Amino acid sequence: MFIGKVVGSVWATRKEERLKGFKFLIVQHYEVDGTPLRDHHICVDLVDAGVGDMVLVVRGSSARQTEKTKEKPVDAIIVGVVDRIDLEK
Amino acid sequence: MFIGKVVGSVWATRKEERLKGFKFLIVQHYEVDGTPLRDHHICVDLVDAGVGDMVLVVRGSSARQTEKTKEKPVDAIIVGVVDRIDLEK
Amino acid sequence: MFIGKVVGSVWATRKEERLKGFKFLIVQHYEVDGTPLRDHHICVDLVDAGVGDMVLVVRGSSARQTEKTKEKPVDAIIVGVVDRIDLEK
Amino acid sequence: MFIGKVVGSVWATRKEERLKGFKFLIVQHYEVDGTPLRDHHICVDLVDAGVGDMVLVVRGSSARQTEKTKEKPVDAIIVGVVDRIDLEK
Amino acid sequence: MFIGKVVGSVWATRKEERLKGFKFLIVQHYEVDGTPLRDHHICVDLVDAGVGDMVLVVRGSSARQTEKTKEKPVDAIIVGVVDRIDLEK
Repeated sequence: MFIGKVVGSVWATRKEERLKGFKFLIVQHYEVDGTPLRDHHICVDLVDAGVGDMVLVVRGSSARQTEKTKEKPVDAIIVGVVDRIDLEK
Repeated sequence: MFIGKVVGSVWATRKEERLKGFKFLIVQHYEVDGTPLRDHHICVDLVDAGVGDMVLVVRGSSARQTEKTKEKPVDAIIVGVVDRIDLEK
Repeated sequence: MFIGKVVGSVWATRKEERLKGFKFLIVQHYEVDGTPLRDHHICVDLVDAGVGDMVLVVRGSSARQTEKTKEKPVDAIIVGVVDRIDLEK
Repeated sequence: MFIGKVVGSVWATRKEERLKGFKFLIVQHYEVDGTPLRDHHICVDLVDAGVGDMVLVVRGSSARQTEKTKEKPVDAIIVGVVDRIDLEK
Repeated sequence: MFIGKVVGSVWATRKEERLKGFKFLIVQHYEVDGTPLRDHHICVDLVDAGVGDMVLVVRGSSARQTEKTKEKPVDAIIVGVVDRIDLEK
């Protein structure tokens, strides 16, 4: 998994049938020390995250291991809103 | 998922049996701020996208979670035509 | 698999139902010669690892091949605490 | 999927039981505009491709979605010989 | 798949139950022309490879498509010892 910040959303009216109803958020990958990276991922939101939230993202086939994304063509989901990052020096 | 622009297509007459009938489009990966990247993917089109369209791409085993690509040797599909990208500054 | 050092943890109160109870550790990827890399992964801990431990990480769908992570939206797990690395020159 | 050129082959007499009978070709990744990249993949050939052919490669679990590679430890296959690439400027 | 050279091994006494009995070798990724890359992978050995051997590595879910690694949390395995690489100029 990796952490990132929600920085926007993507809208697509014409889309694959099984994707209807999903919200696609843009997550900017962040280093764990808080540095933003030039690497963005379009993710299906499962925890009602909003712009500015730091979130936890799961990718690959593991992104389909939830009630809502089971058997859906989805390869990245937001699974948590990050409260705190403890980083040892 | 990531977004990109359809910039062309690939033709292969001699191909694996299960791929017959698919249209292979070339998608150039784009940053969410509209910057084109030097990174292209050959994708099976599921939404009748055309050259110049900004699209949403799903990769990996999730690319087989549709009626048409089920049990097919396909690792990237176009699942949507992007209408709008909202990006917070 | 790759090796890395546990350097911290991530806390998320609001998270996907199936992730409740997991401990999320931050693993910094290390080269096998002991050089730290600027590449971190958030991993579910299965072996009670602690900060400072060198660990072995499994990614992708293979991260779900354990009793605890079966059918869970988890794409990286800590599967071992490294005792020794033998590296030929 | 990506495109590349077949530039050679790899031979391994001692190998995993389920891989016996496969031909392993070396595919050099190419940009869609015809630029060779410094990135090679060892692929199982399913379409009788030869050295010099431009081919289409599928990776990951999707590489097992064919009669011949089903349940085999294979993560990259050649699924087509490319006839033509149409690229818009 | 990719090729590399076995350059060492990793030992972990405390590890996930399903990994007991496996030998973890360090494989340094090599370019097909014989150039070593700064990229190492910890792999389960299935062909009794030794330090100095050039080997063929399979990654991802395909690494579980063998009798020994079925349903195991393993994402990279050594499937062959390379005898010869034929590379066209």
